Amino acid sequence: MKLIPYQQVALRGGYLHEKQELNTHTTIHAVYDRFYETGRITAFKFGYPEKDPVQPHFFWDSDVAKWMEGAAYILMRESHPDLEAKVDEIVEDIARNQCEDGYFNIFFTVVQPENRWANRDWHELYCAGHLMEAAVAYAEATGKTKLLSCMEKYADYIAKVFMEEHSAAFHTPGHEEIELALVKMYRHTGKKKYLDLAAHFINTRGTVEEQNKTQYNQAHVPVRQQDSALGHAVRAMYLYTGMAYLAAETGDEALTAACKKLWDDATHTKMYVTGGLGSTYIGEAFTTPFDLPPDQAYTETCAGIALCFFANGMMALENKAEYADVVERALYNGVLSGLSADGAQFFYENPLEINLSERFVSIWGARRFPAHRRVACFGCSCCPPNINRLLASLGNYIYGLEEDTLYVNQFVASDMADGDVKASVETDYPRNGKVSVTADGVAKLAIRIPAWCDAYTLDKPYTIQNGYAVVENDGTPVTVTFDLTPRRVWADRRVLRSAGQAAIMRGPVVYCAEGVDNGEGELHNYVLPKALTIAEETGVYGLPELRVTCVKEVADDDDLYRNTPPKTEEALLKLIPYNAFANRAETDMRVWFRTE
Amino acid sequence: MKLIPYQQVALRGGYLHEKQELNTHTTIHAVYDRFYETGRITAFKFGYPEKDPVQPHFFWDSDVAKWMEGAAYILMRESHPDLEAKVDEIVEDIARNQCEDGYFNIFFTVVQPENRWANRDWHELYCAGHLMEAAVAYAEATGKTKLLSCMEKYADYIAKVFMEEHSAAFHTPGHEEIELALVKMYRHTGKKKYLDLAAHFINTRGTVEEQNKTQYNQAHVPVRQQDSALGHAVRAMYLYTGMAYLAAETGDEALTAACKKLWDDATHTKMYVTGGLGSTYIGEAFTTPFDLPPDQAYTETCAGIALCFFANGMMALENKAEYADVVERALYNGVLSGLSADGAQFFYENPLEINLSERFVSIWGARRFPAHRRVACFGCSCCPPNINRLLASLGNYIYGLEEDTLYVNQFVASDMADGDVKASVETDYPRNGKVSVTADGVAKLAIRIPAWCDAYTLDKPYTIQNGYAVVENDGTPVTVTFDLTPRRVWADRRVLRSAGQAAIMRGPVVYCAEGVDNGEGELHNYVLPKALTIAEETGVYGLPELRVTCVKEVADDDDLYRNTPPKTEEALLKLIPYNAFANRAETDMRVWFRTE
Repeated sequence: MKLIPYQQVALRGGYLHEKQELNTHTTIHAVYDRFYETGRITAFKFGYPEKDPVQPHFFWDSDVAKWMEGAAYILMRESHPDLEAKVDEIVEDIARNQCEDGYFNIFFTVVQPENRWANRDWHELYCAGHLMEAAVAYAEATGKTKLLSCMEKYADYIAKVFMEEHSAAFHTPGHEEIELALVKMYRHTGKKKYLDLAAHFINTRGTVEEQNKTQYNQAHVPVRQQDSALGHAVRAMYLYTGMAYLAAETGDEALTAACKKLWDDATHTKMYVTGGLGSTYIGEAFTTPFDLPPDQAYTETCAGIALCFFANGMMALENKAEYADVVERALYNGVLSGLSADGAQFFYENPLEINLSERFVSIWGARRFPAHRRVACFGCSCCPPNINRLLASLGNYIYGLEEDTLYVNQFVASDMADGDVKASVETDYPRNGKVSVTADGVAKLAIRIPAWCDAYTLDKPYTIQNGYAVVENDGTPVTVTFDLTPRRVWADRRVLRSAGQAAIMRGPVVYCAEGVDNGEGELHNYVLPKALTIAEETGVYGLPELRVTCVKEVADDDDLYRNTPPKTEEALLKLIPYNAFANRAETDMRVWFRTE
Repeated sequence: MKLIPYQQVALRGGYLHEKQELNTHTTIHAVYDRFYETGRITAFKFGYPEKDPVQPHFFWDSDVAKWMEGAAYILMRESHPDLEAKVDEIVEDIARNQCEDGYFNIFFTVVQPENRWANRDWHELYCAGHLMEAAVAYAEATGKTKLLSCMEKYADYIAKVFMEEHSAAFHTPGHEEIELALVKMYRHTGKKKYLDLAAHFINTRGTVEEQNKTQYNQAHVPVRQQDSALGHAVRAMYLYTGMAYLAAETGDEALTAACKKLWDDATHTKMYVTGGLGSTYIGEAFTTPFDLPPDQAYTETCAGIALCFFANGMMALENKAEYADVVERALYNGVLSGLSADGAQFFYENPLEINLSERFVSIWGARRFPAHRRVACFGCSCCPPNINRLLASLGNYIYGLEEDTLYVNQFVASDMADGDVKASVETDYPRNGKVSVTADGVAKLAIRIPAWCDAYTLDKPYTIQNGYAVVENDGTPVTVTFDLTPRRVWADRRVLRSAGQAAIMRGPVVYCAEGVDNGEGELHNYVLPKALTIAEETGVYGLPELRVTCVKEVADDDDLYRNTPPKTEEALLKLIPYNAFANRAETDMRVWFRTE
């Protein structure tokens, strides 16, 4: 499937479009302002280390690069002179301060120049990759190629160091990212050297002795032998995305097979119901299959975003609706939860359960749980600009073309054009389940039927192929209606930490209960009955709220242990979309509820 | 109630007597041997620091003192010349090496003499307390008073330093223990100075500024203002025991009231179903009410043992069966779990759940869970000799006398004598529920009816008073039969981590399932049905094993998330007594089971 890129897709309205607008009008500026205040922007002026008390961090480049990429996607569609001027100033700084040989890195030029290419885990290639992604995006969006020229020079230099001279203290990146960026550079410039360099990094990984050759870095074995998603979740997703991109360019079947195995392992055994990845803060990493503790979930916002990248990479290799299902799961839940309702605060970690009562602190320390309030900026602030670039490029996820078939992967009111093919989608999904697709220039429409959906109707004859409803296209609208009745969702029985519990979903949206609505220290006392009665009400977070009639354990006697179960009463449980949790207070939160 | 001390009570047979015999023939020797091998015994010879590569630890004295106390209780009843010779040699070492002024501490005499009384948390007064307890026990058991003389000299010196000179860098112990020991010294010697010193430490605690005046040390406020069990659980229990002992001697009503509040808080909101105390390894401490995570339970063996001390202290203040109920809960479960079936291996922590699948280790570390194998000796090896002294002094917990009433608190085949009062109990409790009590010299018998027991019969007329069945005594046996049918037990609904789950108990004994019997990674898939069918079988750990007919979730499809609950089948769940877990393998273990 050829995925239609964001440049050719315009979102027109609805829930995701509102998030995109929030990004355009609030989030992109908030992230810039925080980056400016923390010295990240002026760091590009290389006034360090003598002239400023703030020392640049060794991967600040990447934070700002992701922001620039996000800004570029916005500028592709709309004129924002102020935003463009900010990007241009940073580009000027980069052009002025790039080393003669092509190297560009703030920290390892102005603070520790003696340590260039000294440590694999010091993120130079990671920063380079993000700058390259920004350069391609900015060239696409504005036609301005100054940054791209700088990055071509940098990529040429990296190719010399790593493919010819082998003069660095390591052979492959510690934090993957440059692999996928180099494929983007190749696709944009047509220069095969960049594809070769991507292939070099991917093919060399795990094959040679080098620093920190560990699972954490996905460097324990060669990539084609990897069949289990391991180590740092964001690194893993960036690597796997790069592998999928490379496989698409080269047709490498062994690489494609490895990608599929890694996809299956990650999404069938290590993915939260919210699409979050990474079950432990220890190494921000994957753990073991089915280890998905809701309260200790790490599920970094960046990992959910990178899962969308990987999914799109896989979709380009194989027409299966499963990939778009996962994008949908991550996007509406564990990715959007990373952004506050006001668009200016962020979660790095996205837990699925908060119990304030367990957040005691002694003089010796505290039990370790994720943060439960969003903040404006992190010390390691990779997630906020990752949200910028994802929301601004949502168009990438909606349409695909293969031969005479137009694929509709996500349901967003939008228009697309690709040569003679034109299509539009009318919908207010996921507020309601009606989606109408109109297309010209294709013989067939393939509309994804989400795996979560047990009941749907189409107004034209269809066949199901790989999770898509395929309809002959006659140029008139095809309307599919998905049943969005809220439902209980169970995890595989091997998931220890949600045993005996179910989540409530409405369409693709996972719901949660908060203590502020339902009582602090009470959420575990609500039990979903076998016959579910759920009322929908208008919500303040752009999606309906739910009221579930539950059985609730209530106070009876004071015995800590007793031979009879706790007394129960009927009680209403108020649910809001999971992605909107923690927008009002420090409060308990729960996704998995006990079931009768 | 006057509790009849171990000297006047002989256990004759049954489950607890077998544990006492195991202690006499195996555990007391195993602990000595490990202490010898690790240098703890020869440390008393003060050959340090020049002559030995092993450096004594600053609270080794206390480990050995507890062992000596345990040996003394054994020697009280039986002649063991070899054991007595070992104690005598240590006593000789102490007498020879005690400082002129009365001070005795290995580390702060031979390694860091300059730091005597320098740091409140360096355990000098804690070590002194344990040596005093050993001295009293050894004098009672053998009539030998050399150690007692040494400790009187030491106590006199401590009184001078802390009550007259105020010359130490602190005012009260960091780790409590000496308070209760000084009351024992007073009771044995009749010297009021020791009671005064105990009162001084208790009354001064939390009233003056000093080092580490924290909740962790129960020093945040004066003891009479404390109403919440806080901080390090063992320290707390030793302090509260000392407070109860002091209140019994002085009739101090404010102190008694504080003891009751602390008792209620600890046992009604912070006690595991096994009688374990301490919900976090962070500070080995209490946390917040109803915070009782089974898998992360700290529940130090010493805390369970010290809870028995505190319970006996409370029972002396107030005739309520509740205190003996708690002794029974702790003893049969979270205390005995500290000792292996072979009597030579120990748990420091006693978790209520082990999931091997979560014990992953990354290059960055591991999620923190308690040890899941017993070991022969710890670096901080306080628990093994605490088991020695508790098992050897089980007689302390069985009988009480008040006016014309004989109380039977624990059900153990045994004989007691106290002046004209003689009594005996015939029973094989808790293997079966029949208990026959015969007494001479009292008008009434008060037999505890455990709070867990919903069904029991007595063969004579009785009234219930404070949890005891009170019967007129005519010198013929009174037989009570407790229904030991296994039952489900629920925790208060506020206990988050056992929500929707029940434990299985048979009489006072908590049961558990192990992976080695029921499948690894499977225990959370067993669900107790509403109508319980349980078969009893002969077990290898001295108590019946149970077979529970359960509903079990079994494999169906491979979807990680689905709209239907997991498929189930009927399955037998094999249970063994909780205290016998981890005697066969590294394996999963679970106490709390999902319920229909």
